[in-house]
Amino acid sequence: MVEPKIKRRGILLVLSSPSGAGKTTISRALVAKDKKLKMSVSVTTRPRRPGEVNGKHYHFVARDEFDSMVAEGELLEHAVVFNNCYGTPRGPVMKVLDGGGDIISDVDWQGAQQLKANVPQDFVSVFILPPSIPALKRRLQSRAQDSREVVLARMAKSAEEMSHWDSYDYVIVNQDLAVSVKQVQAILDAERKRRDRQLGIADFVNALRTKA
Amino acid sequence: MVEPKIKRRGILLVLSSPSGAGKTTISRALVAKDKKLKMSVSVTTRPRRPGEVNGKHYHFVARDEFDSMVAEGELLEHAVVFNNCYGTPRGPVMKVLDGGGDIISDVDWQGAQQLKANVPQDFVSVFILPPSIPALKRRLQSRAQDSREVVLARMAKSAEEMSHWDSYDYVIVNQDLAVSVKQVQAILDAERKRRDRQLGIADFVNALRTKA
Repeated sequence: MVEPKIKRRGILLVLSSPSGAGKTTISRALVAKDKKLKMSVSVTTRPRRPGEVNGKHYHFVARDEFDSMVAEGELLEHAVVFNNCYGTPRGPVMKVLDGGGDIISDVDWQGAQQLKANVPQDFVSVFILPPSIPALKRRLQSRAQDSREVVLARMAKSAEEMSHWDSYDYVIVNQDLAVSVKQVQAILDAERKRRDRQLGIADFVNALRTKA
Repeated sequence: MVEPKIKRRGILLVLSSPSGAGKTTISRALVAKDKKLKMSVSVTTRPRRPGEVNGKHYHFVARDEFDSMVAEGELLEHAVVFNNCYGTPRGPVMKVLDGGGDIISDVDWQGAQQLKANVPQDFVSVFILPPSIPALKRRLQSRAQDSREVVLARMAKSAEEMSHWDSYDYVIVNQDLAVSVKQVQAILDAERKRRDRQLGIADFVNALRTKA
């Protein structure tokens, strides 16, 4: 038996969390497991860090190029964080969604609000909380390349970011990474079965009823 | 590390499908696997079939007892199907939901609408479609205890029931039972993480932010 192919809209899944609570690790684990899910690659003006690949981790661009993308409406959201510009290019996201694929983005709460405004129908958001403050501090300190000042600035930003949990569709406490990955995967699997995303269901049911 | 206990509202999960498309089998498989999930046991005036246990498959009641439950508002929904009365008792459902547990019900579309009206906040609905009409007919015919007339009546009711897929939150095509069980489990797991069900999250976040 062949599974009926039912056309559906893709999902723009936004994972936000205070820095260090796990959104990037969870996103990458999901993309590695789920063939229908692509990572949204942001453009940024910040310098490339050791180990980062242009076009994979970010599209690294000069400031004037970034400004021109903003001016041309080529970004679905953009923000300045610690004096660096970040943005989500519109073209690749819309291509995936229109094709019935799903895309994951780990922008912060302000980015999430801009994405929701620009892609309201396909937007699903998950906020990831740390299980405790010591756990969050440990994770931020283990990023050896960041200075003490950067860690302190990130802790302050984390506390602020956490206050925005209540504008998200789903909330997860990241106690155990494997469990959290499964929970976000369940959210994605469930959202794929939402009636209003399944564009082909009406035709499928009509065909069934004609034959009954 | 102990997982933070975050108080939440329970979910009233309604699975509907045309007769023979698999709702009862899927419901029982879920309840067997998921300790947080209980089956809603309906009251009915229909005669007990061989193998059915009173209080497990149904609460079998006389017609006057059923009518008195309706009059007293003790049923969250009720209906007459093939001259027999069926209903969902309010008490056991509300007890599970108030305690943060989840309950599954396999009522038809009319029952689903009554449950939604009575328990709007906790209500989540899934419609299960058969993959094809021959598959549906095979499953109905394999119920050896039903007569040919009953099978034909059920096929007619199935076609009617299918026209109501578009009032449900989620739609699943039951091609493979194990896959369908996983899909409904994902819906349940996802809905448990919905922000507005997690009553304790606000306190949890406030405690985190105080310590940050």
